[in-house]
Amino acid sequence: MVVTSSTTKLKLPEGSKGVLVKNLYLSCDPSIQNRMRKFKVSSYADPFKPGSPIIGYGVAKVLDSGDPNFKEGDLVWGLTSWEQYSIIYGTDTLFKIHHTDVPLSYYTGIVGMPGLSAYVGFYEICSPKKGEYVFVSAASGAVGQLVGQFAKLTGCYVVGSAGSREKVDLLKNKFGFDEAFNYKEKPDLDAALKRYFPEGIDIYFENVGGKMLDAVLKNLRDHARISVCGMISQYNLGQPEGVHNLMNLAWKQARMEGFLVVKHLHVHLKFVEFVLPYIKLGKIVYVEDVAEGLESGPAALVGLFAGRNVGKQVVLLSRE
Amino acid sequence: MVVTSSTTKLKLPEGSKGVLVKNLYLSCDPSIQNRMRKFKVSSYADPFKPGSPIIGYGVAKVLDSGDPNFKEGDLVWGLTSWEQYSIIYGTDTLFKIHHTDVPLSYYTGIVGMPGLSAYVGFYEICSPKKGEYVFVSAASGAVGQLVGQFAKLTGCYVVGSAGSREKVDLLKNKFGFDEAFNYKEKPDLDAALKRYFPEGIDIYFENVGGKMLDAVLKNLRDHARISVCGMISQYNLGQPEGVHNLMNLAWKQARMEGFLVVKHLHVHLKFVEFVLPYIKLGKIVYVEDVAEGLESGPAALVGLFAGRNVGKQVVLLSRE
Repeated sequence: MVVTSSTTKLKLPEGSKGVLVKNLYLSCDPSIQNRMRKFKVSSYADPFKPGSPIIGYGVAKVLDSGDPNFKEGDLVWGLTSWEQYSIIYGTDTLFKIHHTDVPLSYYTGIVGMPGLSAYVGFYEICSPKKGEYVFVSAASGAVGQLVGQFAKLTGCYVVGSAGSREKVDLLKNKFGFDEAFNYKEKPDLDAALKRYFPEGIDIYFENVGGKMLDAVLKNLRDHARISVCGMISQYNLGQPEGVHNLMNLAWKQARMEGFLVVKHLHVHLKFVEFVLPYIKLGKIVYVEDVAEGLESGPAALVGLFAGRNVGKQVVLLSRE
Repeated sequence: MVVTSSTTKLKLPEGSKGVLVKNLYLSCDPSIQNRMRKFKVSSYADPFKPGSPIIGYGVAKVLDSGDPNFKEGDLVWGLTSWEQYSIIYGTDTLFKIHHTDVPLSYYTGIVGMPGLSAYVGFYEICSPKKGEYVFVSAASGAVGQLVGQFAKLTGCYVVGSAGSREKVDLLKNKFGFDEAFNYKEKPDLDAALKRYFPEGIDIYFENVGGKMLDAVLKNLRDHARISVCGMISQYNLGQPEGVHNLMNLAWKQARMEGFLVVKHLHVHLKFVEFVLPYIKLGKIVYVEDVAEGLESGPAALVGLFAGRNVGKQVVLLSRE
């Protein structure tokens, strides 16, 4: 990644059907890395073209619009580019922001795609029931912190794993997880999970993959559900680690199901109506890690894969 | 495994609530091996006690009964022991045979647990639709041969893999698979699957695990379903092989779900009513591999794991 400069006129070309925006917040998402490949990993996102700006979710302000659905001054969230100003043509992935009584940056996180991921992956894929045992990996991240809070709202017992004492402290003392542990301090993940889940795990919200998944598979309860949101520990490996314990899916009559949040945008409005009251009442909280300036973007993105972020990683370009 | 002899009176002890049976057919099932461990792999079956007879499914004739649900002369199928005569106490896993116009041995196969496994795993777990692309591994085995025929009845395109030319021939010419291949002749399983499924795989009926599963994961279509019935290639390994491509579950919004057929016995009658007419009309066929005599049992069971059986492996003790 390199930062380059050029000048542009802040006006759409005559007759353009696009939307010219000033980007305010950019979202650092692990899935961005999945497009930095030569091949297409899913049917829904092509690999980036080398030399082009990174494409990702963000919050922006409309400066000029050739699309009747948007007008100057509108605040929007959706797919934009990692640049100060962008012309967006694919406005089907651009949404007007109606609720401005939460921080705008939240549209890259708790009320954006990570929030929707937590909602779809936990409620729709896992159908949680009160009293169930829930485990969340990368639990202080953009998605995980919400899954834990949703689990508590549902009356579940929830344990989270993260990669530092600071994050473990957040899980227990800010997000209300029942228990949390630093996986780097647990060389035997199977033993750790057996201690936290003597009865086994009903629901695993999968954010990391690899060894953690393998240990979870050995600790499933009958009819367990695993929601595969991501596997961040695996994306930078030439070959992902081998997972050995899949036969437990049969022995425990368990289900492992993946999802792409981009295919659940139709649920977004319902989700926002569900989550906003909790945010306003302070019953759900959200921690962001804000990097300032476009030039801090590459390090912020790369930092995700080393767990350097604490909470949702955002890049702030401009407050308005 | 050793074969031992002793004598017994063919009469139940006074006041016994059990059922004394003469065993006619014993079923060689890969799952028997899962009970030859020191630990319990599922909540539904304890490890065998060394020195005791192997417990498995079979067909038997009632000689004496202390249970009002069974009487002398009844033909039954269900859990029995690998011996010529058995006293069965857990009669909740013993079922009367009502249809005797199919071979009795079929109650160890097509109308027994393997048949029910194919039915539940294909129809209930995978919800197949006409025109979908179906792949079955261990496709000439007790379960696989039926899954392929069910897939054809549903109007799917179905490809099977097996471990010999003889089996591949059966798949194509007896069971009506659209295509079949010998996995031992395909060092690059990924490339083989890409050739047979240029559009990808909608449904994978998993009987083998390991490298085959890994190759399938790379060839899933969006919304694919994997039904985990068993992973026979893995049971004799100290540690099962690593499966690397699980992130495709998310990228393809796919589901992988395991089941234990023993938990679906309530569907058995419905299944028999479904399958019997097809058998009688010759629209579904079934191939058995019959070993004769109790002393041939151990080699027949062990042979499953080397793929020595062609079709459902049965041990015949007595025809009546």
